Amino acid sequence: MLKLYFTPHTCSLASHIALEDAGATYSIERISFSAEQQKSPEFMAINPKARVPALVTERGVLTETPAMLAFIAQSFPQAGLAPLDDPFAFAEIQAFNSYLCSTVHIAHAHRMRGYRWATDPAAIADMQRKVPQSVTACFELIEHGMLRGPWVMGETYTICDPYLFTLSQWLEGDGADLSRLPRVLDFRRRMSERPAVRKAVAAELARN
Amino acid sequence: MLKLYFTPHTCSLASHIALEDAGATYSIERISFSAEQQKSPEFMAINPKARVPALVTERGVLTETPAMLAFIAQSFPQAGLAPLDDPFAFAEIQAFNSYLCSTVHIAHAHRMRGYRWATDPAAIADMQRKVPQSVTACFELIEHGMLRGPWVMGETYTICDPYLFTLSQWLEGDGADLSRLPRVLDFRRRMSERPAVRKAVAAELARN
Repeated sequence: MLKLYFTPHTCSLASHIALEDAGATYSIERISFSAEQQKSPEFMAINPKARVPALVTERGVLTETPAMLAFIAQSFPQAGLAPLDDPFAFAEIQAFNSYLCSTVHIAHAHRMRGYRWATDPAAIADMQRKVPQSVTACFELIEHGMLRGPWVMGETYTICDPYLFTLSQWLEGDGADLSRLPRVLDFRRRMSERPAVRKAVAAELARN
Repeated sequence: MLKLYFTPHTCSLASHIALEDAGATYSIERISFSAEQQKSPEFMAINPKARVPALVTERGVLTETPAMLAFIAQSFPQAGLAPLDDPFAFAEIQAFNSYLCSTVHIAHAHRMRGYRWATDPAAIADMQRKVPQSVTACFELIEHGMLRGPWVMGETYTICDPYLFTLSQWLEGDGADLSRLPRVLDFRRRMSERPAVRKAVAAELARN
């Protein structure tokens, strides 16, 4: 059975929603960042990168959200979460998800994880001041082109949608200019009403 | 016919090598960063993100290296550049490439592109000072685990290899501690001797 290691309010939510969308049988285990569990020997044995998400499968561990999302889509083809037999359409999905991981998530990460790339507290503070601008710019590209509507790729829901929904959770915290992003906000609202999203979010926030 | 927009010394080399590996029929067009061609209206119409690489296909434009590499592997299955019928093995390849784009390339980018994430020149200088440490740390994870040898995924050459080769070109410029990376350097040397790599590198550096 699949097992997803997650931390609330991180990008692991994207894979969690996709597992729900796929109708997969899976379990979840919470990794507490406040307790630094991601750096524990137990978790480092699962993911030496000391990050979530990680997906334990019968064949081994998978990491990195875009790879996990494509894996879920390919492993549960009946769910129709990606155009698996069309390399160009599949590549469009992958390009969108790659943009989210390598540009959008990175812009966001400079608010809380600036220590990865700088040492001086003044530099880290300067990074934080730029986050509203850089995150807004990323999402404006999505607003005005990438988000075709009603879903990211148009009429068909895909593995792009839970990933964009997950990163759009951070807009307020990042100080993004929401007035420029009406289509993204409408997308986010519609996503939040889907049963799979509600179930995944509730499971992550439950205390147990 | 496929057309690759590239800039020398950037990550577009990965897709260029993969096109050679695949035996694809393609053309290349150089985008000059020094002339800021990536911000020209002509190129922005191709890639609104104003970055290379971009791959023009019969169906439209693809961007983002991991997506392009998977597209090349899927479009030229006879080249055997990825395990296309094995979702887990394919996901391992995608996870490696996602790590390169979202962590390794980003660590490197703080040397030359710090203005994306900070404004204060002192902050940008502080970012630059951290690059040797952060890039070395990324490559040590590759050295000690991800790079199975002789190729990234083991005995079989895949789309991970041109991508790792491309990013390993930047090690010296980033001030990485090469003494800690003997397996990466051996991999880089063996890659540099492959005819497809030689041909792609020579084509990018040719003046015409």
